[in-house]
Amino acid sequence: MNRHILLIKCQDTKGLVFKISSILLLHNLNIEQNNEFVDKAQNIFFMRTEISGEVEREKLLAEIKASLQCESEITLCKQEQKSIVIFATKENHCLGDLLIRHNSSDLNAKILAVISNHNHLESLVNKFEIPYHFIDSENIPREQHEEQIIHLCKTLQPDLLVLAKYMRILSAHFVESFPNQIINIHHSFLPAFIGANPYKQAHARGVKVIGATAHFVNNNLDDGPIICQDTIQINHTYTWQDMQKAGRDVEKAVLAKALNLALEERIFLHNNRTVIF
Amino acid sequence: MNRHILLIKCQDTKGLVFKISSILLLHNLNIEQNNEFVDKAQNIFFMRTEISGEVEREKLLAEIKASLQCESEITLCKQEQKSIVIFATKENHCLGDLLIRHNSSDLNAKILAVISNHNHLESLVNKFEIPYHFIDSENIPREQHEEQIIHLCKTLQPDLLVLAKYMRILSAHFVESFPNQIINIHHSFLPAFIGANPYKQAHARGVKVIGATAHFVNNNLDDGPIICQDTIQINHTYTWQDMQKAGRDVEKAVLAKALNLALEERIFLHNNRTVIF
Amino acid sequence: MNRHILLIKCQDTKGLVFKISSILLLHNLNIEQNNEFVDKAQNIFFMRTEISGEVEREKLLAEIKASLQCESEITLCKQEQKSIVIFATKENHCLGDLLIRHNSSDLNAKILAVISNHNHLESLVNKFEIPYHFIDSENIPREQHEEQIIHLCKTLQPDLLVLAKYMRILSAHFVESFPNQIINIHHSFLPAFIGANPYKQAHARGVKVIGATAHFVNNNLDDGPIICQDTIQINHTYTWQDMQKAGRDVEKAVLAKALNLALEERIFLHNNRTVIF
Amino acid sequence: MNRHILLIKCQDTKGLVFKISSILLLHNLNIEQNNEFVDKAQNIFFMRTEISGEVEREKLLAEIKASLQCESEITLCKQEQKSIVIFATKENHCLGDLLIRHNSSDLNAKILAVISNHNHLESLVNKFEIPYHFIDSENIPREQHEEQIIHLCKTLQPDLLVLAKYMRILSAHFVESFPNQIINIHHSFLPAFIGANPYKQAHARGVKVIGATAHFVNNNLDDGPIICQDTIQINHTYTWQDMQKAGRDVEKAVLAKALNLALEERIFLHNNRTVIF
Repeated sequence: MNRHILLIKCQDTKGLVFKISSILLLHNLNIEQNNEFVDKAQNIFFMRTEISGEVEREKLLAEIKASLQCESEITLCKQEQKSIVIFATKENHCLGDLLIRHNSSDLNAKILAVISNHNHLESLVNKFEIPYHFIDSENIPREQHEEQIIHLCKTLQPDLLVLAKYMRILSAHFVESFPNQIINIHHSFLPAFIGANPYKQAHARGVKVIGATAHFVNNNLDDGPIICQDTIQINHTYTWQDMQKAGRDVEKAVLAKALNLALEERIFLHNNRTVIF
Repeated sequence: MNRHILLIKCQDTKGLVFKISSILLLHNLNIEQNNEFVDKAQNIFFMRTEISGEVEREKLLAEIKASLQCESEITLCKQEQKSIVIFATKENHCLGDLLIRHNSSDLNAKILAVISNHNHLESLVNKFEIPYHFIDSENIPREQHEEQIIHLCKTLQPDLLVLAKYMRILSAHFVESFPNQIINIHHSFLPAFIGANPYKQAHARGVKVIGATAHFVNNNLDDGPIICQDTIQINHTYTWQDMQKAGRDVEKAVLAKALNLALEERIFLHNNRTVIF
Repeated sequence: MNRHILLIKCQDTKGLVFKISSILLLHNLNIEQNNEFVDKAQNIFFMRTEISGEVEREKLLAEIKASLQCESEITLCKQEQKSIVIFATKENHCLGDLLIRHNSSDLNAKILAVISNHNHLESLVNKFEIPYHFIDSENIPREQHEEQIIHLCKTLQPDLLVLAKYMRILSAHFVESFPNQIINIHHSFLPAFIGANPYKQAHARGVKVIGATAHFVNNNLDDGPIICQDTIQINHTYTWQDMQKAGRDVEKAVLAKALNLALEERIFLHNNRTVIF
Repeated sequence: MNRHILLIKCQDTKGLVFKISSILLLHNLNIEQNNEFVDKAQNIFFMRTEISGEVEREKLLAEIKASLQCESEITLCKQEQKSIVIFATKENHCLGDLLIRHNSSDLNAKILAVISNHNHLESLVNKFEIPYHFIDSENIPREQHEEQIIHLCKTLQPDLLVLAKYMRILSAHFVESFPNQIINIHHSFLPAFIGANPYKQAHARGVKVIGATAHFVNNNLDDGPIICQDTIQINHTYTWQDMQKAGRDVEKAVLAKALNLALEERIFLHNNRTVIF
């Protein structure tokens, strides 16, 4: 059976649910799951609907667009496996977690490749018969390094780029090449401890919780729309290295959760915030 | 502006959202918030809608009922302050928490009375100018004790009976007198540690988490539909008394959360489980 | 039976536990509970010991001091009820929580007074027969306002000043008048969202967790040593007012926990960080 | 530098810390870390000390034993890498998590082998060049199946046997062959949902939290001493399969945490409970 996901974002007006549900009914489509949210402060309507049945794509989209009578963002995509490219540097926990999930089909995505600025993780990735691209950043300008990666990704055409502890800052040019397609895991509960070495910063500040944040990457470092966050309790016995070790479990869990939400088309972006169904 | 909450539970069929939203639109009603859920395993549709506008109550209900073409439970209630009666025994933390919330209008309910089988909490309740009914259970048969309470509650006519650490077991007769109206807080993460002294049981078992469960009361002790649960980490240094003390903070938070959900008509009951919007 | 708490902080050297325990044994004192921690990075030894028996105070302190052969901070205090003054503004949840705990002897402290820059909470405090000092901050210079409070606190002589959502910034002069005696609850997981309206800031940033931080107050706003922190999950449906409401439960729980730790003399301060036994 | 861990469990009496620390000092040993706990209800003293320096093993143990003047359990072990055998059935998440940790040296243990009653995980384990023993349980008596495994483990001589979602119940004979050496992860917050299919049980009961429990295995199924537990919030939208999927992240985190505690010799057993430093 054909299954699709319909995403609608538009100005809120009376009768939207009626309009959309009547079109779906006339198309003889089943609503398998339906979520709506209205941001009252900004008067924006969000709707995510899982539908099953024979979809006449162009006709359906045109009718919905016409019925809304306002500026809108409408997406209709098949429920099918998406493809990703994973970026990593030296730490293996986020990458390894995704590989293990992939190995048991817990991660519903095709991993096209792993890209890294180091060769540390090559043997791990090779075990899983996934292409590993070591693109060295030493002794070449940043622009040139990024261009190699951009070229590779444009060739691979992944749906999402997953930064699984990729420890390099991406330029505005890179980010704009893959709009709303890059997910990063930051090793702090943002907006605390932006930038380098958040666990060292956390230790210096003497915090009693540490955490991790998965977010879409935009032009401002660590400032993109947040998808998931979680924290754990720590205490005075933790050195920053202990925090780093304990934090890894949060990092990998939060990244996997965020990635699954993106793969299932559950995330709307609006004004640097996310609406998640 | 008139605001109502519409609750619908019925067999799931195609077109339900369309049918209901079209009736609401024809009645010129605004959908302020809308939630739906389909229990696929049992094929049951649940919907909670906050509507604003002039409601023609009987007409609206009749039209919805007719359109559903199946057995259904439909409730339409005004968004207005509900009334409660609180039951307590000797511990003051859950009761006190509700009194403080009430004092700052954080609890959107009218507290009609506090009923207790002890007089320990009378002076606390009196501070807040709320009637305190000490109904002694000593030296009288349980049936007679309960009859006094039932009589009082039938007179007061509360929407909900809140057992805020009321340490007596209610008979089937009592429970049936207030169907789906009694909320209890149990001091364990049910179904673990049913019955008396859950913290002693938890200590004996050597658990590393303790918790609390808010649930509707039915005929089987500690077996009613669960509304909210939460847990906290403990360790070997906790005596059962330490667990009891630490657990109080979870108990009062979980009870208040469950009560707020009930006051806002956010809970559906189905087959001893809850659907919560 | 006499019970004391012995707190020792000094440079770490070999044999410290032996030296201290031998002196306690020679004084015929029982060790009821003992905790040690060594900050390896800074080579500092921390020890907290609960002792019972007849304490010859001056002799014991002198012998320990002599045995340590280095700069040290040694405190020996009776295990007895401490006194506090609570500061509040308009919100009742932290204050109310402390009043209810006090009412059932769950809070082992004498509440000498509540001080506020508003009269909103007067009737609540009066219910519990605790003096309420409304010290108006309108139309007078900040220095003069603070002087009135300092004068009052110097008269009352509390062990601790508890800022239970007191919404005014204290001057360096005020803070220095009560060194390491002021505990504040901040409504964010510090160091995120320092300053005014953290929930508005959190909403604008689109975070998925909110939290609260209890800390000692020093000269830099929201920068003092952290005692306790906790967070809760939120989502896109939360307005900043919803966050504020949900956050109150974390705030009051975190403040009460921190206050209990301070009352039990479980907190060491070192370099703007806390060691907590 | 030589590092050892000293574990002492004995009846509590006055002067124990003094006695032990004086012997360590006379042996010219450094205390790197020290933890004590007294179970007041049972009058049992627990102490774990990390020491560095030249250890005269027999002499040290004899002197401590003599000084305690009571029945005691004293263990002195080198701080060195331990060896484990991992048991699994079909699910890869706990096993995979341990393999990835091992791959980056986050797991300080030598994995001697993986034993399974199925061949599903063989290719995964082979990637990491770890011996995989598929010991089929079909068509042979349980005793015979277990004997093969016991024989293999007696040959391999692991310090610990880690049941990483091994879905077979072990006989008393098996358990007694490896006393206090078997760690299991159970997919519920014990003692709730003992036995088969805890997620189905949890769904049927309508709980709002699910969890996992790591425990030592004793003769009574799911009744051994608990090491770690954790829970996560769920809601009515979760089928039991969704719970199972979400639960995997808790299971693997809890098992890894418990295993690390055991590998670092941080766990005391006493009366079916654990003391963990």
